[in-house]
Amino acid sequence: MHPLDEAIELQAAAPNEFKGATHPAYANMVGPFGGTTAAQLLQSAMLHPERLGEPVALTVNFAAPVADGEIRFVARAARTNRSTQHWIIEAHQAEGVVATATAVFAVRRETWSDVEAVMPDNVPAPEALPRMPVKNMPAWPERYDMRFVEGDFPAFFDEQEQTHSRSTLWVRDEPARALDFASLVSISDSFFPRIYIRRRRRALIGTITMTTFFHADSTLLAQVGERHVLGVARALSYRHGYFDQTGELWSPEGQLLASTNQLVYFKD
Amino acid sequence: MHPLDEAIELQAAAPNEFKGATHPAYANMVGPFGGTTAAQLLQSAMLHPERLGEPVALTVNFAAPVADGEIRFVARAARTNRSTQHWIIEAHQAEGVVATATAVFAVRRETWSDVEAVMPDNVPAPEALPRMPVKNMPAWPERYDMRFVEGDFPAFFDEQEQTHSRSTLWVRDEPARALDFASLVSISDSFFPRIYIRRRRRALIGTITMTTFFHADSTLLAQVGERHVLGVARALSYRHGYFDQTGELWSPEGQLLASTNQLVYFKD
Repeated sequence: MHPLDEAIELQAAAPNEFKGATHPAYANMVGPFGGTTAAQLLQSAMLHPERLGEPVALTVNFAAPVADGEIRFVARAARTNRSTQHWIIEAHQAEGVVATATAVFAVRRETWSDVEAVMPDNVPAPEALPRMPVKNMPAWPERYDMRFVEGDFPAFFDEQEQTHSRSTLWVRDEPARALDFASLVSISDSFFPRIYIRRRRRALIGTITMTTFFHADSTLLAQVGERHVLGVARALSYRHGYFDQTGELWSPEGQLLASTNQLVYFKD
Repeated sequence: MHPLDEAIELQAAAPNEFKGATHPAYANMVGPFGGTTAAQLLQSAMLHPERLGEPVALTVNFAAPVADGEIRFVARAARTNRSTQHWIIEAHQAEGVVATATAVFAVRRETWSDVEAVMPDNVPAPEALPRMPVKNMPAWPERYDMRFVEGDFPAFFDEQEQTHSRSTLWVRDEPARALDFASLVSISDSFFPRIYIRRRRRALIGTITMTTFFHADSTLLAQVGERHVLGVARALSYRHGYFDQTGELWSPEGQLLASTNQLVYFKD
């Protein structure tokens, strides 16, 4: 069983309630990698007997540090329409709510379609780039095969301020795993904090909210399979303790799979 | 009293509960303008006696059509930390939940700050541009003074497909009103549907979720006052019944006030 599938495994505990736990394979410096928590929140709606269609949008609010151990998920369909469904989800631990989420699920139809965003061009193939070393990192980056085109995690925090916060990289689960909504939302949170790329100095940071729009349906995700997706992330603004991160995840064929935005607390 | 202040007026009805109503000055084709509903959802946390600090992020999920008339708002602080607070908010009407929201409030501190996003340059001043005519439009666009630089609402739906969905415009409340979080979140939803700009043909559309990050605090908003803000909106992807809209709102001095993303249902 893939460690991500172990990490998002949930047991139905009561109506609207599921039990899960943090997984050592996705440990961060303190507590778990937020991407896994986001995937668990989504999974509680995915597994719910009332679930309609597939996710099109997910907002996760990281309300408090998640402690290693059990997490109780409460997922409630606030509204079910003919082709859309709105979820409110909470993650609880002994000391209270640690995360909240809203999700929109939908049954999609074929329509006129077009991608306006522009995928970076002249990007070397993943095979032509080295995998980012994960030595001395927490467990979770070991669970990703990341190959940076630009804006890599600084080898040294040399405090040489860069002109921008942009990163472009190929990324997939490690070991390889067929892409699905759970892994796509985890990957949405796998970009390193933009302030590290920009300032190359340590800062206390914490994502407080992340919204991912799924432009892909399960059929398109299945076409990506176990291959890398191209991630692009940048920051629009750093101001008074918060910065944002805006990201895109592309299929190798140039389909926009997801766009993701997060707001991050920082202390300098 | 400004019509926006009337529209977001709420009466405390019970612990965590407020009563408000749709306002004819912000009527859409059917039901109210979503921006006003978003501002009401935010306002229920703003007015709550437990509120800490100022909003930094708001996600609104438009779960069902809002009927003209009374709306009951239920706002609950799911988690209050030392400097951040997480809200879950629901809007109810007789037939059920019509909108849900999560909001993050925070007490900000001065830190290193920088804007990386680039404000469009060579933009004429608002005074040098004509106001968009609002004849034959629903009530809500009359409540905005919009002056388009590019990507205006098509005068005719001539079905001439455009190469992109980008709009750039100056926008302020009409009548003029000092900018605050309520008006900023309403303006976040005031961009016309990207598919109208792109395809110049009618389509049934409905925003299903919108996330706004507030990069500005109240001090910066007060500096904008009653002047126009510069709005920029575009679409990244149209696919299988949904498209996104990504927007920015800039102060005349080039401060990024808010960035906003929404996912919109469409039927072609």
